[in-house]
Amino acid sequence: MRLKLYVDRMSQPSRAVLIFCKVNGIDFEEIKVDLVKREHLNPEFKEINPMRQVPAIVDGRFKLFESHAILRYLACAFPGVADHWYPSDLFKRSKIESVLDWHHSNLRRGAATYVLNTTLAPALGLQLNPQAAAEGEKLLFASLAKIESIWLKGNGRFLLGSSQPSVADLSLVCEIMQLEVLEEKDRDRILNPYKKVQQWMEDTKRATRPHFEETHGILFKVKAKLQKQQLLGANNATNSSIKTSLQSKM
Amino acid sequence: MRLKLYVDRMSQPSRAVLIFCKVNGIDFEEIKVDLVKREHLNPEFKEINPMRQVPAIVDGRFKLFESHAILRYLACAFPGVADHWYPSDLFKRSKIESVLDWHHSNLRRGAATYVLNTTLAPALGLQLNPQAAAEGEKLLFASLAKIESIWLKGNGRFLLGSSQPSVADLSLVCEIMQLEVLEEKDRDRILNPYKKVQQWMEDTKRATRPHFEETHGILFKVKAKLQKQQLLGANNATNSSIKTSLQSKM
Repeated sequence: MRLKLYVDRMSQPSRAVLIFCKVNGIDFEEIKVDLVKREHLNPEFKEINPMRQVPAIVDGRFKLFESHAILRYLACAFPGVADHWYPSDLFKRSKIESVLDWHHSNLRRGAATYVLNTTLAPALGLQLNPQAAAEGEKLLFASLAKIESIWLKGNGRFLLGSSQPSVADLSLVCEIMQLEVLEEKDRDRILNPYKKVQQWMEDTKRATRPHFEETHGILFKVKAKLQKQQLLGANNATNSSIKTSLQSKM
Repeated sequence: MRLKLYVDRMSQPSRAVLIFCKVNGIDFEEIKVDLVKREHLNPEFKEINPMRQVPAIVDGRFKLFESHAILRYLACAFPGVADHWYPSDLFKRSKIESVLDWHHSNLRRGAATYVLNTTLAPALGLQLNPQAAAEGEKLLFASLAKIESIWLKGNGRFLLGSSQPSVADLSLVCEIMQLEVLEEKDRDRILNPYKKVQQWMEDTKRATRPHFEETHGILFKVKAKLQKQQLLGANNATNSSIKTSLQSKM
């Protein structure tokens, strides 16, 4: 039975899982769970993931959620996956686990909180929250600085000085990629101070092409739509009109 | 060379790592990094963990931080650890990974935010933040409800219906244990609705005794001190006096 991925490409962990499968030649069926249409709250999806979040997978009779757990599982369950993605060497693997665990309360929380509360909230029927945005921004900057000075220390092109990417590179770069939906100036303001981070993102894209660009296509479409609305004076747009325009692109 | 654990017993992930080593007969040296005295910011500790957080370990020449990564490493590196803590079976292990990953943005964030912003902030030189406390409380309740209805579903005494504890049981129960420093009434208000959670906490304590109680001794001392201060009308106590009293117990 074919592996089933329950995903929404607007979700950064969903994109990481999709790219991982594509890069490693894992055959799968992509089943869209549209977050804007609240399909993750449907009773059928609750049977797949009782936490009602994407991504989730079904592999035969085995169900799993949480993107890092899924990436680890896929790396171990499918024999064609190259070792560098999730090394069998205990010391290398443990260092990658350290990055994956750090990610949740740092880069992920900072980036997701900032983007939600400056840009995406109306599309999900939520209010923009400037105070939460400010806290998210602070954590995002601190996280990027740590990636630059700690995880990208050394001469390797990837995290932990590696010459090839791991699941941690994929997860973290997909997280940062959501900044694409921000205004160009704002995205540049955030990323420009971090030259190593920018180079590492390029290297990760290159190592996973053409799947990286293809999977992120949705972001560029949403960005174009948001920009167009802004040009049309969308400052006065109602939440529902932004939501409708996003839905048409998702 | 003996395994070194850099910990502060007031930190719940530190307690999980300590108990894991004690229960599994792993020989270690405990090196206290006093968070109230800001020892985690010392240059010497930065060499151990550049993120300046506890716990961290040094095993020979190998350094590692992030408690879940440490627990995984210890379970694999020390041959005496029973398989149920971190099963070699891919399907069982993956389900445990799912709990561990979920923990960061749910139970951990909810419990730590609530306890910090209702009780512990002054001891760390921070302001109590009622709005953050309210958000933490909401996430804490939602997380306990998920543990009760999803992770503790079935007949097993431990998470995922298991008959023996895993690293996930230890990590999550240590997180909830920090509620001990709250006022009795408040702790009861939070935990009373969740009967399965209470039973599971008791079962985890029993499975790891006497190390569980011994390692958590610090919490009961701090609680007694906080209660005493309250009885003495400590509502007017300055931050520095609470800090001093906590320091004397840590």
